[in-house]
Amino acid sequence: MVLTKTADDISSMRVRGAGRIARTAALALQEYGASLECKTLAAFVDEMQNAAEILCKTRPTAVSLPNAVRYVMQGVRGAGTLEEAQQALNDRATTFIHDSQEAVQKIADIAARQFPDDAVIMTHCNSQVAIACIVRAHEQGRVREVYATEVRPRNQGYITIQMLSDAGVPVNFIVDSAARSFMPKVDLVITGTDAVTANGAVVNKIGTSQIALCAHEARKPFIVAAETYKFAPRTILGERIPIEERPAEEVTGSGRQLPPGVTVKNPAFDVTPPAYVDLIITEIGAFAPSYAPVVIRDHLGWDISEFQKEYAFTHQYGE
Amino acid sequence: MVLTKTADDISSMRVRGAGRIARTAALALQEYGASLECKTLAAFVDEMQNAAEILCKTRPTAVSLPNAVRYVMQGVRGAGTLEEAQQALNDRATTFIHDSQEAVQKIADIAARQFPDDAVIMTHCNSQVAIACIVRAHEQGRVREVYATEVRPRNQGYITIQMLSDAGVPVNFIVDSAARSFMPKVDLVITGTDAVTANGAVVNKIGTSQIALCAHEARKPFIVAAETYKFAPRTILGERIPIEERPAEEVTGSGRQLPPGVTVKNPAFDVTPPAYVDLIITEIGAFAPSYAPVVIRDHLGWDISEFQKEYAFTHQYGE
Amino acid sequence: MVLTKTADDISSMRVRGAGRIARTAALALQEYGASLECKTLAAFVDEMQNAAEILCKTRPTAVSLPNAVRYVMQGVRGAGTLEEAQQALNDRATTFIHDSQEAVQKIADIAARQFPDDAVIMTHCNSQVAIACIVRAHEQGRVREVYATEVRPRNQGYITIQMLSDAGVPVNFIVDSAARSFMPKVDLVITGTDAVTANGAVVNKIGTSQIALCAHEARKPFIVAAETYKFAPRTILGERIPIEERPAEEVTGSGRQLPPGVTVKNPAFDVTPPAYVDLIITEIGAFAPSYAPVVIRDHLGWDISEFQKEYAFTHQYGE
Amino acid sequence: MVLTKTADDISSMRVRGAGRIARTAALALQEYGASLECKTLAAFVDEMQNAAEILCKTRPTAVSLPNAVRYVMQGVRGAGTLEEAQQALNDRATTFIHDSQEAVQKIADIAARQFPDDAVIMTHCNSQVAIACIVRAHEQGRVREVYATEVRPRNQGYITIQMLSDAGVPVNFIVDSAARSFMPKVDLVITGTDAVTANGAVVNKIGTSQIALCAHEARKPFIVAAETYKFAPRTILGERIPIEERPAEEVTGSGRQLPPGVTVKNPAFDVTPPAYVDLIITEIGAFAPSYAPVVIRDHLGWDISEFQKEYAFTHQYGE
Amino acid sequence: MVLTKTADDISSMRVRGAGRIARTAALALQEYGASLECKTLAAFVDEMQNAAEILCKTRPTAVSLPNAVRYVMQGVRGAGTLEEAQQALNDRATTFIHDSQEAVQKIADIAARQFPDDAVIMTHCNSQVAIACIVRAHEQGRVREVYATEVRPRNQGYITIQMLSDAGVPVNFIVDSAARSFMPKVDLVITGTDAVTANGAVVNKIGTSQIALCAHEARKPFIVAAETYKFAPRTILGERIPIEERPAEEVTGSGRQLPPGVTVKNPAFDVTPPAYVDLIITEIGAFAPSYAPVVIRDHLGWDISEFQKEYAFTHQYGE
Amino acid sequence: MVLTKTADDISSMRVRGAGRIARTAALALQEYGASLECKTLAAFVDEMQNAAEILCKTRPTAVSLPNAVRYVMQGVRGAGTLEEAQQALNDRATTFIHDSQEAVQKIADIAARQFPDDAVIMTHCNSQVAIACIVRAHEQGRVREVYATEVRPRNQGYITIQMLSDAGVPVNFIVDSAARSFMPKVDLVITGTDAVTANGAVVNKIGTSQIALCAHEARKPFIVAAETYKFAPRTILGERIPIEERPAEEVTGSGRQLPPGVTVKNPAFDVTPPAYVDLIITEIGAFAPSYAPVVIRDHLGWDISEFQKEYAFTHQYGE
Repeated sequence: MVLTKTADDISSMRVRGAGRIARTAALALQEYGASLECKTLAAFVDEMQNAAEILCKTRPTAVSLPNAVRYVMQGVRGAGTLEEAQQALNDRATTFIHDSQEAVQKIADIAARQFPDDAVIMTHCNSQVAIACIVRAHEQGRVREVYATEVRPRNQGYITIQMLSDAGVPVNFIVDSAARSFMPKVDLVITGTDAVTANGAVVNKIGTSQIALCAHEARKPFIVAAETYKFAPRTILGERIPIEERPAEEVTGSGRQLPPGVTVKNPAFDVTPPAYVDLIITEIGAFAPSYAPVVIRDHLGWDISEFQKEYAFTHQYGE
Repeated sequence: MVLTKTADDISSMRVRGAGRIARTAALALQEYGASLECKTLAAFVDEMQNAAEILCKTRPTAVSLPNAVRYVMQGVRGAGTLEEAQQALNDRATTFIHDSQEAVQKIADIAARQFPDDAVIMTHCNSQVAIACIVRAHEQGRVREVYATEVRPRNQGYITIQMLSDAGVPVNFIVDSAARSFMPKVDLVITGTDAVTANGAVVNKIGTSQIALCAHEARKPFIVAAETYKFAPRTILGERIPIEERPAEEVTGSGRQLPPGVTVKNPAFDVTPPAYVDLIITEIGAFAPSYAPVVIRDHLGWDISEFQKEYAFTHQYGE
Repeated sequence: MVLTKTADDISSMRVRGAGRIARTAALALQEYGASLECKTLAAFVDEMQNAAEILCKTRPTAVSLPNAVRYVMQGVRGAGTLEEAQQALNDRATTFIHDSQEAVQKIADIAARQFPDDAVIMTHCNSQVAIACIVRAHEQGRVREVYATEVRPRNQGYITIQMLSDAGVPVNFIVDSAARSFMPKVDLVITGTDAVTANGAVVNKIGTSQIALCAHEARKPFIVAAETYKFAPRTILGERIPIEERPAEEVTGSGRQLPPGVTVKNPAFDVTPPAYVDLIITEIGAFAPSYAPVVIRDHLGWDISEFQKEYAFTHQYGE
Repeated sequence: MVLTKTADDISSMRVRGAGRIARTAALALQEYGASLECKTLAAFVDEMQNAAEILCKTRPTAVSLPNAVRYVMQGVRGAGTLEEAQQALNDRATTFIHDSQEAVQKIADIAARQFPDDAVIMTHCNSQVAIACIVRAHEQGRVREVYATEVRPRNQGYITIQMLSDAGVPVNFIVDSAARSFMPKVDLVITGTDAVTANGAVVNKIGTSQIALCAHEARKPFIVAAETYKFAPRTILGERIPIEERPAEEVTGSGRQLPPGVTVKNPAFDVTPPAYVDLIITEIGAFAPSYAPVVIRDHLGWDISEFQKEYAFTHQYGE
Repeated sequence: MVLTKTADDISSMRVRGAGRIARTAALALQEYGASLECKTLAAFVDEMQNAAEILCKTRPTAVSLPNAVRYVMQGVRGAGTLEEAQQALNDRATTFIHDSQEAVQKIADIAARQFPDDAVIMTHCNSQVAIACIVRAHEQGRVREVYATEVRPRNQGYITIQMLSDAGVPVNFIVDSAARSFMPKVDLVITGTDAVTANGAVVNKIGTSQIALCAHEARKPFIVAAETYKFAPRTILGERIPIEERPAEEVTGSGRQLPPGVTVKNPAFDVTPPAYVDLIITEIGAFAPSYAPVVIRDHLGWDISEFQKEYAFTHQYGE
Repeated sequence: MVLTKTADDISSMRVRGAGRIARTAALALQEYGASLECKTLAAFVDEMQNAAEILCKTRPTAVSLPNAVRYVMQGVRGAGTLEEAQQALNDRATTFIHDSQEAVQKIADIAARQFPDDAVIMTHCNSQVAIACIVRAHEQGRVREVYATEVRPRNQGYITIQMLSDAGVPVNFIVDSAARSFMPKVDLVITGTDAVTANGAVVNKIGTSQIALCAHEARKPFIVAAETYKFAPRTILGERIPIEERPAEEVTGSGRQLPPGVTVKNPAFDVTPPAYVDLIITEIGAFAPSYAPVVIRDHLGWDISEFQKEYAFTHQYGE
């Protein structure tokens, strides 16, 4: 059945990336709803609610997942009749998938207006949306060159320089440690994000916060490109986004023996405080990080009573 | 002849490291002076002056070299008789070599007093003197653990963790990008240096200034261990220390083809401003960076008229 | 009569504390409304409006009072019939009282998620809600110890250490002047508040802003626990919250003669600017101070036209 | 015809000043609507839409113009019948004109409450609303004196000192360069603004950002008085407000010959970042700059889908 | 015998205060030297050296003691004949005592020039030299009023307000927590110090660093009045000045029972970093803290080889 | 007589500029000494001392005057015989004049090394030595363009742009208020100075500190070119350099009537704190401002006992 398969695809990481996880979940709900043969609204809501819970549990730390599920389910919960519920489910799922696909291009449009002529840009890690912003500005003839970092330990910088090279953007490739040295030559820094918290902090690839600090020190704008489904509603409740600790082999290479008493620490992400983020560009506009709770409440549509219900049934964030 | 061989050893980089270059040059002058059979003071001074110039030209960017040569030659230049000159040459060369060898241990003694009990220390790159400081404090039972960075692109961090492991110091090994994430757990950061300028800036391995910035942001002391021959006298004249650009292969590995339009930028060093340096520990004491010009003038014995003479005969720093 | 008695209890300070004042006023309105025998909606609204004014005047500087009165009265003003008005009055008063009582526990739930494992916490003054946060985290096994200040001149720190001791939380008791010295050992600071202004500033016990500054300097989170009725709506109109000047005897003790020419200055509160406040935790979520005007407008339900009416009938804030 | 004449008056700068441009446009729409003899709602909307486009094109950089047009047109677009549309057009135009005229006095009321007793105030350039704030506080007996700058190159400071002198306010007249020297004597700085962006930045007369920086350095409040029609909705889309470059003669005087190789750069405005703005006072309340996007969305009533339509038909901000 | 009695007076704290300890030690050496009946220089030097060691051990943490002993002994150690040694001992002891007594007045002269007309000054704790500075400026008619803190836990503020009252200086008495609230009204802060370290940090009464931070935040000059014998030479060797932990009863009063699990922490001093110290005023001039190592080396006459000898024979600073 | 005439020339401002005043005074002392026909050293010293006092009184606020007089007189005071005194007077006067004339070129040599390739430089006011630095770098082919300010009220910017134009340097001419707007395009700022104080503060033309603040904010080096005779020795004693208040007509033009209640404030100079000065370049080297007291003591040769004598006989700095 589609729901089980989707749930499995997400939990096994066959489906990856915040955007694809979100769209896959919306689609699964849509198809599951269409396949149901309930007689009453109550039964339909019950079944869908159940499906929503199953999906949310597949990857409890994926920020985009509950956002997608909630967006789609809002139509089901608010409906007055069974037909309304079915219609709303179908419409909202379609809208969510469409908007989420369009979001990258809308963000690129908005972001490119922030680039000065002959811009020199730094980026870190490999973010589809950040690269889309750079390429859009480059198409408009306003990018001189990019500084791209190596991104230890997994070296995603090599993917970034390939994508920029394919788009014809001149690139300087540097080690992560050299970001501060080249910052005076840079006009702005742009990165993607894994999550934005209720107080406007940005959770992204290890090293991001260090570069943001260097940009802040050098008075260069640090811009984050973020689809709105990256905003993390549970952080309004004080939830902290757990930082994944990854295997030592990513750093040392497999098979390398370390001297006795030496341990590898390999966190995947770090947290950039809102004070170092000049602008968050979403598909609904460009804002300071202080606007984050308004996005969560008014655009994503979460409020605390719903959180608490969610919180009650998932329990996934216990520390 | 000893002088030619030494000059060759230094310029070909068979002799490496600021300390060894300095001691080798002092020894070469001592031996060369002993081998001379001059009849007059004037002839002796002339020959020695000539030798000094040859040595200084072998590695024009090595900060320790002119400091060593000048220290030894001061005795020759100030002498009233040939015998005095010979004696002074011999004595000062011996003193310089001895003091320079002792400097690391004196610095370790002083530095260890800065470590709190159960200290957690971060270090970057592989500095003999910084490691000596950590090991000394560890011998005194006051080190809990060390965070050591990978040090891209040449991965000198592996040498550092080996040396600390050999000394029994527990170590966490992290990528350079993770320095900011672990800074809250750290009590102090200590590194070595390639050079200290007249306004107290520290020139060291790429990435140092980024870590110093993170330490400054987190209010953790950033300490530099520096033998006094690392202080760069010509910077009083406004000379800027050139930052060596190293081969792309250090970053990418040899044989790797980069996509078109991608260039590697690989500076070997960066500059940490004095505002981020809390203490410079030398063999003559621990000071704020503002004390640097006093060290250059009063301890190393340089003043501007001498600089200008040096400057006139070397011309090596023309930009 | 209940209204007169309540008004008297509040103005004479027999009823103290922002929460109790608010709940007492809501209850008084509820009971007063139930006792009225009006025949028309207009008459009922008139009487209630009158009662609301009387209550608001009893303690013009209490921030929670107009918030409570306004919340309850909103039902009366918006009603279409007398019955609706009576029902709404009753319902809203009940809701306000209930929510206000629950707020402390909701805040404690949210706040405790902010505490790291083995947390060391500093607090200042004696705040019921801040202590609830600490105790909740302690119950979850995540508090190592607390630093509590003496809180001159009234020494409320003794109440705080008693309450924490009763809850089994280990405490270090320090003079107010020692806050900066112990800040490096602390993981976070949490306090209550008397009022939060429209631009996110926090008005609290004298000394709070000094500790917030020390936390900010040391990069430690400064967290304020605040029920939403602490948000001060009139500050949107530029009203400044007056700082109460209290008697000299609180400082010197009664009967102590001061030398000639010496005056005691004893302000009860100070103002912590939003830049030093990392998080405000309310019963509706945890936010940066920049969210304060949204709370005032959307949660408390004030807008400027209402302010101006309020302002017109009270006149209490003329400077 | 009224519309053509108004369009011409605005584009030829016979009508100047953000407030007057806005009110003139609202009036022109009102009169134009009254003069139309359409038979259907669709025709009426079409004509009005057309008129709105014509007006918006007259001064593409005037922030107040689209705000006024949009406010008035919202009634037309939302109407269900022709009569409703005509009525709404008339009502909204009247309201806009009235509110915009009242805004200065409301702002003055709110701002004056921010002034301490015996206040010393600095202002820059010649802003009607900033002067209204000072005069209001002076009427309340709370202004000691004002520091007013010369405002090179067009010397608008002379108008400011005349207006303050007429109101009986004591003034010190200083060159723009002396702002930092006198800042320690000042209690607060207040200026007007040409535009407020979505991230809370303030675009105003050249020199404003320098004075804001000096106020920030000296810990003095920097307050901006801004009618809400000064908030720039398109900046949510990342549009940057173009900075007008004005003639060299404004600086050098007409007829003055400059030496060869010398060029005058004469930007009319600069941008003060939100970090240096303590309070923005509008007719709907006093807020931190972080509230700007809420004002644009909730008070001015813009959302991104409308922007994009606007954006589509104007194309005026291509960089 | 005088030496034994003096040693006993110092170690038992019958002689207190940095200045009196220093002068008493100088006098003891002078009298002891005069009482000796040595036949040779060597014997005299030996005896005096021994006496010096005895005195230095009486209060190992008193910074002024080794400074005084060293100053006096420098004459003995440098002498060529017995008579020279006796004469130098006598002369240097007399000079030290005289200069140390004059230092307070010289500092007051220099400091008073820093006070603006009609100055408002804040001070913390009870420092003889800081009060002398205020009184001198007051005699010159340039002091409006002083803010003096309570100085918990030992309330030395009461001594300060008595001394200022006796001199006719108007005083405001405030709790330590109120320092930040009154800082905007203050023109400068002046305190004494217990010790100045080699990197310009100031060790003084608990609370000093908190007030220095508040002054720094408010851009008010923070001035330290310090006789040169307060400069701590051993800190050049990295010695950290130990912070004395004092009895709980000072805080709680004697006899008060604390609840279980509550511990008092009562450090006597704190450390103000050089970044918050604008000026150190000594009897040899007014300098930034960066001048501290020059004072230690050139004025006090210490260099590292002497330190190490001292260090070797005392061993008192082992951590 | 030469002395009277020189004294008159200086006090009447016929001789202007720090350098020319200093050299004229040295020359006057030299010629006066040559004209004396004293029989004894004592008589010669007396006469010269007298002459020195007369000269120093002619412009009590000129920093270079006592530096010149002291430098020349040091030879007289230290002499053992009349002939020695005469010789020393002659030699030192010649040296001072020569060195002071060479200083500008030495400073230009050192400063030019600080300029990056293709440098964009900002300068303020009209400083001979700052312009020499720019022109020297331009001769070396490393200057792209200069931003020069108007320098209200006396418009010295017109002299600067003429001098730079004459040297072939491309210049942008801007109003003083535009400095912050153009700072991001600038590589460094360089100005001259009227005086450098003992704590490294820079006294220079009004507006300098505002531009230094903007450079500091933008992380651009702010460099001060200063002959060592600009260092103000009396500031070690806490003397504050008085800021000259100049006529209103400089600002308003002569004959312009100001409205009633308006006063012009026109200070000639402002004070840039050392924290905003990155480098002071003198003829003896380039240093951080913290080196200022070493220059005053070791290079200029002042110590406090001499100051106090000076201070005693001049009394000119009483506030």
